Amino acid sequence: MNQAQHLLEIVNQHINQISLLSEPKELYAPITYTLGNGGKRIRPVMTLMGCELFGGNYQQALNPAIGLEIFHNFTLLHDDIMDNAPIRRGKPTVHEKWDANTAILSGDAMYAIAFDFMLKTPDDCLRDVLTLFNKTVIEVCEGQQYDMNFETRRDVSEAEYLEMIRLKTAVLPAACLETGAIIASATKEQAALLNAFGSAVGMAFQLRDDYLDVFGDEKVFGKKTGGDILANKKTWLLIKAFELASSAQRDKLNSLINQTSIEPQTKIDEVTAIFRELQLDKRITDKMQDYYQQALTAMEKIQQPQEAKNPLIDLANLLLKRDS
Amino acid sequence: MNQAQHLLEIVNQHINQISLLSEPKELYAPITYTLGNGGKRIRPVMTLMGCELFGGNYQQALNPAIGLEIFHNFTLLHDDIMDNAPIRRGKPTVHEKWDANTAILSGDAMYAIAFDFMLKTPDDCLRDVLTLFNKTVIEVCEGQQYDMNFETRRDVSEAEYLEMIRLKTAVLPAACLETGAIIASATKEQAALLNAFGSAVGMAFQLRDDYLDVFGDEKVFGKKTGGDILANKKTWLLIKAFELASSAQRDKLNSLINQTSIEPQTKIDEVTAIFRELQLDKRITDKMQDYYQQALTAMEKIQQPQEAKNPLIDLANLLLKRDS
Repeated sequence: MNQAQHLLEIVNQHINQISLLSEPKELYAPITYTLGNGGKRIRPVMTLMGCELFGGNYQQALNPAIGLEIFHNFTLLHDDIMDNAPIRRGKPTVHEKWDANTAILSGDAMYAIAFDFMLKTPDDCLRDVLTLFNKTVIEVCEGQQYDMNFETRRDVSEAEYLEMIRLKTAVLPAACLETGAIIASATKEQAALLNAFGSAVGMAFQLRDDYLDVFGDEKVFGKKTGGDILANKKTWLLIKAFELASSAQRDKLNSLINQTSIEPQTKIDEVTAIFRELQLDKRITDKMQDYYQQALTAMEKIQQPQEAKNPLIDLANLLLKRDS
Repeated sequence: MNQAQHLLEIVNQHINQISLLSEPKELYAPITYTLGNGGKRIRPVMTLMGCELFGGNYQQALNPAIGLEIFHNFTLLHDDIMDNAPIRRGKPTVHEKWDANTAILSGDAMYAIAFDFMLKTPDDCLRDVLTLFNKTVIEVCEGQQYDMNFETRRDVSEAEYLEMIRLKTAVLPAACLETGAIIASATKEQAALLNAFGSAVGMAFQLRDDYLDVFGDEKVFGKKTGGDILANKKTWLLIKAFELASSAQRDKLNSLINQTSIEPQTKIDEVTAIFRELQLDKRITDKMQDYYQQALTAMEKIQQPQEAKNPLIDLANLLLKRDS
């Protein structure tokens, strides 16, 4: 069992032991339901790994790691209301199973419970950990707002898209790693390097998501590809396609996006064909590779033995080479 | 100018100076709108008064005081979505002026901004202040959940109602006062006494609200009375009326509550008449008086000179004798 798997078991044990109040049950049952609904638990594992990288005792980082995971799940709960999403991890979302009011309020309480765990940070780094956490929370809110804004915009640039996914997706794993580093008493500069590593991995991870949704192998991907295309979602691929398209390709894309009566598979196939003509499968892979290199460059500057770094590099490889 | 008025001016100055980020504007504009929409700012003033009672420097309590006020406004923002309320302080609510998604997300960000101010608590009491804050947040969520649960229940007891308003309304002013006390280095026992004072005042304040909505003088109250009766709201008065009613009165009340075609003023007059038959105007005043006495008893045990206590006792008098 490697380090990440070992830490994952510890995280899962700890989450399973969380015992919330039971009354009012309308408030707490949706939180228990959400926390019991799995997920990869990558973020808390990253916190423990960040702590171990700098020679810290992971047990000191365990509660804040759980706090960060609870916060992450809170954002999903509220995002699902805003996105009107019926299913999360194969089960009905909270606003579907209960109702929107329940989802709003139990989300608010979940955020407070996340903070309870964050408060179990040792005294000597409490302020630094909470300041980073709070900054991250605000950035994640900003990212979600930009994402919603983009739905009704036609002129989203690549730079705007990358900033949106940085805020919505990349700052949290970066903060998870940095939290571990802070608890292990890493210097500010070294902690910032680990943050940069996490942020670059997060960016690459999100681009991989965009890639798999179009070019993934359905058998391995585990779900139908083309969902983003059908939803006209402004992914890196679509934004870049409009940027690089010839006039004829742009007209074709616009017509595919605006048609409401087109057969879904036809739409997916034709948009994908344009993406391929523009070599976007290769371009997005190159872009991911750029971020991966940025991550490695940041990691190289961290003054710790290579064998201490390897588990994090292995995790990044695992996340970025994933096919599902 | 008395102490409370002086501190209110300081609070208002400080709130007016808050400068939030401007982008994304969809996230920050509703927060600026909410914070600029006034309110009595009683809670932050209580924090500063709690600090001064124990000889502290109010400037050390100013940022957490603002944090508590921002948190209070956040709860109103989310509560207004859940209650589907169109107007707050004479202006459209955020979910009306923008939409529900905006109100959910800018509320979440507002909660994080509240925390930013809470984090500006001096090091030596940071953990105590944040622990109290977080406990209070969770209690306020529980109170709001009970309040929503009560809407569809017919069997709410007086004890349940009192616990609901304690959580939803009384714990926050109590925590505001206690936060000031903690920052002024009061002992835990003394800080708890000030919390008890604030909690009892908060209970009496809410009962006064229930009283004024039925028995208030419309000219002084500033709005039409009877709103709670028309909404069949489970106030102390209605709960107590069912508890004390004769069989005939109970049948009458039930019929008034269940009729949908009844002329509004008739409903108000007839329910109010039953309340008067049951002497609920006097009973609720006695109940308020009980809480007021509890507040004074707690204050008496606080080991500070009487002249230091007087501003808080004056404030309690002002809040509880209010006619609007």
